[in-house]
Amino acid sequence: MKNILLTISYDGMPYSGWQRQPDAVTVQGEIERVLSGLCGFDVTVDGTSRTDAGVHALGQRATFSGDIKIPVCRICYAANNLLPESIRLLAAEEVPEGFHARYDSKGKTYIYKIIASDDVDPFMRDHYYFAGRGLDEASMRSAAKALEGTHDFKSFEASGSYERKTTVRTISRIDLKKKTAEAPSGKMLDELDIEVTGDGFLYNMVRIIAGTLTDVGKGKIGFGDMERIIEGKDRALAGHTAPPQGLYLKKIYY
Amino acid sequence: MKNILLTISYDGMPYSGWQRQPDAVTVQGEIERVLSGLCGFDVTVDGTSRTDAGVHALGQRATFSGDIKIPVCRICYAANNLLPESIRLLAAEEVPEGFHARYDSKGKTYIYKIIASDDVDPFMRDHYYFAGRGLDEASMRSAAKALEGTHDFKSFEASGSYERKTTVRTISRIDLKKKTAEAPSGKMLDELDIEVTGDGFLYNMVRIIAGTLTDVGKGKIGFGDMERIIEGKDRALAGHTAPPQGLYLKKIYY
Repeated sequence: MKNILLTISYDGMPYSGWQRQPDAVTVQGEIERVLSGLCGFDVTVDGTSRTDAGVHALGQRATFSGDIKIPVCRICYAANNLLPESIRLLAAEEVPEGFHARYDSKGKTYIYKIIASDDVDPFMRDHYYFAGRGLDEASMRSAAKALEGTHDFKSFEASGSYERKTTVRTISRIDLKKKTAEAPSGKMLDELDIEVTGDGFLYNMVRIIAGTLTDVGKGKIGFGDMERIIEGKDRALAGHTAPPQGLYLKKIYY
Repeated sequence: MKNILLTISYDGMPYSGWQRQPDAVTVQGEIERVLSGLCGFDVTVDGTSRTDAGVHALGQRATFSGDIKIPVCRICYAANNLLPESIRLLAAEEVPEGFHARYDSKGKTYIYKIIASDDVDPFMRDHYYFAGRGLDEASMRSAAKALEGTHDFKSFEASGSYERKTTVRTISRIDLKKKTAEAPSGKMLDELDIEVTGDGFLYNMVRIIAGTLTDVGKGKIGFGDMERIIEGKDRALAGHTAPPQGLYLKKIYY
């Protein structure tokens, strides 16, 4: 009996999200199909984060266990040969029995990638949010600062969310990183990455934070309004939900 | 009666190539559907290059004509609102009656984008050829040099090709450009772009050139073998056909 922790990167665009579904192609479904074939029994993988359709991962984690005969050091190579190229196992390591990718997680980092342009590049549409020109970054940074710390983030939770005990979460850090992205045409585009680290996130929380910060950057919401939005505990007070294709699950902490 | 020349960029991956087909989604089909709706009559667009499934364009050209009531300066904006984001009209300009995007073309530039890595990045799989590590660029440059000029390129034509009068073509220039591509994970990858300009290209010619140069880079074909391959006029002498997703139609000359 072995317990294996996987590190996984995937392009979320071709999939109906992480979670297995009977009639849709999902990341979990693809990985379970391939690992079941390799292991010779029905494998169930438990992922840390049930990413939505179109959301990407640079470092998703998942555990699976059983009487695994294939050497641990061969799992990635063997599985990557059978998986679609949009899903890559980056690492597989044996962990103690009982270790669980989701329940043992202490926190996560997400990146939300924005391009400050009105013209969608046809080659980058699936991996960035084209949010428009003229984002005021200084305002966005001020607003981001106000979201750091332990707060009730009910205003930043999608309606119709998963069952949860509390809507209080701790964001340890939000960084805005300015970069330049080169399109295949050679055109240089202004990229702004919002990197958010916290102990846990409510449903759609990072996308609502990214949408709200974008609205601040456009002057639709004041950069001083964050405290009022948090204290209101009302989804209607925050900004729009930024689209899934800009969101990347970067790292899980244990 | 107006004659309009379009400049078009598209991601070829979602499409069964440029050319209209009754039961498949193609770039020409999508553009004709949208322009027909805008113009109020059945529009036929004539593209310069019938790019294959998965092949991209940065500057495809196409002409269409008719009693076009919509102002020329509004065509791009109006069409881009209705087209999928994977197809973008970059320019629309009125040209003299009788001007034809294909028949009046004097030459073209293609780019073939290679990543020198064995590990496919899940976010870049549709836009590059992951050709493996350790390509000997000096050998590739020597081999590329030998392909420049006017030759019978029969060895670099796919079997089962379009009807054509001659297999003689002139390649005015092949450049190899070394670059660095940043993956969404932040990883920096070695990119090698092969830029080929010529008066015209046989079926799959650029992909066979890219595959042959890659084989030279790996030492499977000697860099001094190009003359022998050209003179043999036999497809079996040249290297493999590089996959479609690395190929971009960059520019058309008139």
